[in-house]
Amino acid sequence: MARAEPTGNRKTRSHVITVSDRCARGETPDGSGPAVETALRRAGYDVTGRTVVPDERDQVAEAICRACGEAALVITTGGTGLAPRDVTPEATRDVLDVEVPGLAELMRAESLKVTPHAALSRATAGLVGSSLVVNLPGSVKAARENLAFVLPVLPHALDVAAGRVADCGRKIAMREKRP
Amino acid sequence: MARAEPTGNRKTRSHVITVSDRCARGETPDGSGPAVETALRRAGYDVTGRTVVPDERDQVAEAICRACGEAALVITTGGTGLAPRDVTPEATRDVLDVEVPGLAELMRAESLKVTPHAALSRATAGLVGSSLVVNLPGSVKAARENLAFVLPVLPHALDVAAGRVADCGRKIAMREKRP
Amino acid sequence: MARAEPTGNRKTRSHVITVSDRCARGETPDGSGPAVETALRRAGYDVTGRTVVPDERDQVAEAICRACGEAALVITTGGTGLAPRDVTPEATRDVLDVEVPGLAELMRAESLKVTPHAALSRATAGLVGSSLVVNLPGSVKAARENLAFVLPVLPHALDVAAGRVADCGRKIAMREKRP
Repeated sequence: MARAEPTGNRKTRSHVITVSDRCARGETPDGSGPAVETALRRAGYDVTGRTVVPDERDQVAEAICRACGEAALVITTGGTGLAPRDVTPEATRDVLDVEVPGLAELMRAESLKVTPHAALSRATAGLVGSSLVVNLPGSVKAARENLAFVLPVLPHALDVAAGRVADCGRKIAMREKRP
Repeated sequence: MARAEPTGNRKTRSHVITVSDRCARGETPDGSGPAVETALRRAGYDVTGRTVVPDERDQVAEAICRACGEAALVITTGGTGLAPRDVTPEATRDVLDVEVPGLAELMRAESLKVTPHAALSRATAGLVGSSLVVNLPGSVKAARENLAFVLPVLPHALDVAAGRVADCGRKIAMREKRP
Repeated sequence: MARAEPTGNRKTRSHVITVSDRCARGETPDGSGPAVETALRRAGYDVTGRTVVPDERDQVAEAICRACGEAALVITTGGTGLAPRDVTPEATRDVLDVEVPGLAELMRAESLKVTPHAALSRATAGLVGSSLVVNLPGSVKAARENLAFVLPVLPHALDVAAGRVADCGRKIAMREKRP
């Protein structure tokens, strides 16, 4: 497996965002956030922060934007399905500078070998400046599996994206101006 | 195969829209609409309506919007290719509240095992409120095949999406205001 | 393999655009442009022009638009990854009348069998009028491979798209008006 070099430099800094109304209200313990953190540490990443936010588009977008200011890799878990409150892909697109559709296609194609329900994940991925954002599903099992599918390409992605400049503050401001 | 429960409740109500200039003008009998209807009934859905519309973006969008008012599952057939008049994906996006790219990716990936021309389908899928809209190609054979690829996940999709609120009247109004 | 008929008619006219700052400045010889040209000629296409442009969104968009005025098939190579200057997919979308996502999905799915890094290609494809535009990666090997994946469906795509009318001059003008 491709491993991030655990040198403490920016490219190994990661942040995990759990998107869940019930976790944010403290009604359910957060299962997928810690599971993703463990998997990232095993792959050589420092997990320099974790955030739990409710399924609110603006709060998810701001959490991603803030996390990209300090981490090279930002993983969200939850909010990618068809449920009425699922808004993680929309919130992610609100702040992405460029979308990387192949990462989501790869996760869905590999997940379909596990379950046909994988076709219903609306997860996306892309860059905010030189930081890579990847949406994972909210179930512990699916989050772990999907992360494993993309881990091998993340070091190369972060290498190539180095030097990009983020624009997400302006993007959030523009969105807020919309009626 | 996952079967919709034939209980007559909203989640088993489906509507089939044939998008075809020639069928709308009565020059060709509609082959794919009845074929899709038969396949849906076999899978446990009530087909509570069928519509035939020409390849006109506004008429397709309005037909989808209206069908989503009465049915949980709305299947279109035709207008997904590269021909000059093909506009079904654009019309569908005009009214979708959220796109579900994995369903179209699944249909293309499976169809590619049958024919390389599957790469040319621009079909999309997504939600209008709690109703799921799926574009199928216009040929009887391809429509049947593609429907079969997604049928197994539709009951779960409709379960999860229950409770979503549609916004398509406003979307059509906004589009009409554009220059 | 499906072959374009070498009859000299519009459907066999192709144009290759190399997108590369270093090639445009003459710092590196253009490897992928000539490789794509050779592959197209072998498949029965006339290569009626080649262009080299830097990774500047407006210059790439204008080169595509101009090439679509004279060729039925326009292939770009380069600028599809995550590097700071990569803008080819954005420039392509600036001028596309309709996107054909299945061609890019097919290239990524097949390329993933060769390398997991294929997930990082942001290449797209679509129509400008009746001309088909396809983005390829910038490495000679990946450009050759990806072209080979889509060559079999191009003749049918060009047949079906015949008669479409292009809108890219207006699209570029609209983009220039944006703040």
